[in-house]
Amino acid sequence: MRYELYYWPSIQGRGEFVRLALEDAGADYVDVARRPRGMAAMTRLLEGRSPRLPPFAPPFLRAGELLIAQTANILLYLGPRLGLAPRSEAARLRVHQLQLTVADWVAEVHDTHHPIASSLHYEEQKREARRRAASFLAERLPKFLGYFEEVLARGGQAHLAGKAASYADLSLFQMVAGLRYAFPRAMAGLESRYPRVVALHDRVAARPRLARYLASRRRLRFSRQGIFRHYPELDRPK
Amino acid sequence: MRYELYYWPSIQGRGEFVRLALEDAGADYVDVARRPRGMAAMTRLLEGRSPRLPPFAPPFLRAGELLIAQTANILLYLGPRLGLAPRSEAARLRVHQLQLTVADWVAEVHDTHHPIASSLHYEEQKREARRRAASFLAERLPKFLGYFEEVLARGGQAHLAGKAASYADLSLFQMVAGLRYAFPRAMAGLESRYPRVVALHDRVAARPRLARYLASRRRLRFSRQGIFRHYPELDRPK
Repeated sequence: MRYELYYWPSIQGRGEFVRLALEDAGADYVDVARRPRGMAAMTRLLEGRSPRLPPFAPPFLRAGELLIAQTANILLYLGPRLGLAPRSEAARLRVHQLQLTVADWVAEVHDTHHPIASSLHYEEQKREARRRAASFLAERLPKFLGYFEEVLARGGQAHLAGKAASYADLSLFQMVAGLRYAFPRAMAGLESRYPRVVALHDRVAARPRLARYLASRRRLRFSRQGIFRHYPELDRPK
Repeated sequence: MRYELYYWPSIQGRGEFVRLALEDAGADYVDVARRPRGMAAMTRLLEGRSPRLPPFAPPFLRAGELLIAQTANILLYLGPRLGLAPRSEAARLRVHQLQLTVADWVAEVHDTHHPIASSLHYEEQKREARRRAASFLAERLPKFLGYFEEVLARGGQAHLAGKAASYADLSLFQMVAGLRYAFPRAMAGLESRYPRVVALHDRVAARPRLARYLASRRRLRFSRQGIFRHYPELDRPK
């Protein structure tokens, strides 16, 4: 099956969690909005009257007759089909639980630079962003990193849900990569406390298909448009 | 099977989305932390070393051998078992997509009164809360209500995912109920634009088991401790 991914064409954003899964599996997919006239196709699906259940926002995935939105829901669907989810229902629920925790974390990272409104520019909420980012770095970032470190420690395996990699492992890689870009000083100060998380990041980055993807032009750069944004004034003070 | 729900004993919060499903189905369950010594049991599971996969936060559900966290994930598990999810995988993904959109909405409602940090009191972020709440009421609240109105309009059925109620319908009921409590002036001004959403709220509230639950002492009151909080200064100006 050829999957069609719909997401903003110039940022990693939430779509990247889906791209990583598709790329790691070597799946046949089209990143629709990055193709000519692709943005118009995405807008038609978002604003048109045709899908039975419209997406609230990108990313969304077309898989044959299905149109699936919400990042974690797309991964719930793709996981077993791409060999990135365990077999049993119990284990799949565990992976999904971890993915939903990543989703909460992503929303908090976004709000470090947009604590008041997504519709306003960063510059219009800069003062509030400094306060929110300081709290995020002091309390929430260690809490999330510590949680995943603990999950890896209790599992005692190479990946979050066992020996084999799941889509949640790819997502945790992306969190570390994005946080290093956005908050280099804070991450440099914290990482030694979370050796299992860092090792997992490295293990995922070294997966052959993923390594090729990360080195390719298909991997968009982090920038000041996505979830992870580098504003030095929001990072830990020097 | 007797389910054990673990959630803060004095608020509706995110746990209420699970309580509504259990109550609507007449399921056999214990609201553990509301029992004597229940808080200690919840803390042990959160902070102890025993569960293979610890929850990041309440709510979580014990179902036999399973310990499931993340509200939407709990509902994904319970839905088919409580008769609150459709049969096909495609339809279940649609319901889950809607639930995840509710989850995003819940987080935004929470942040209207806590835009800077959950660890700070409301009074310590009141100025920022006024700005965030104003943006929420002007832009996000109509967007979410309009989205669910459109889903109901396109479906053309009594419930979000067809003729039968699903856990997403119960959750949309809870959103309307909570928003009416938190933002009575804003909701009074908006509701006439979303007749299908309001009708769905009423239809859910009239379900026999749910109506009995809502009238019982098991239904905690909305308060200034939960997700939905009534601060008149955050509501639409008179």
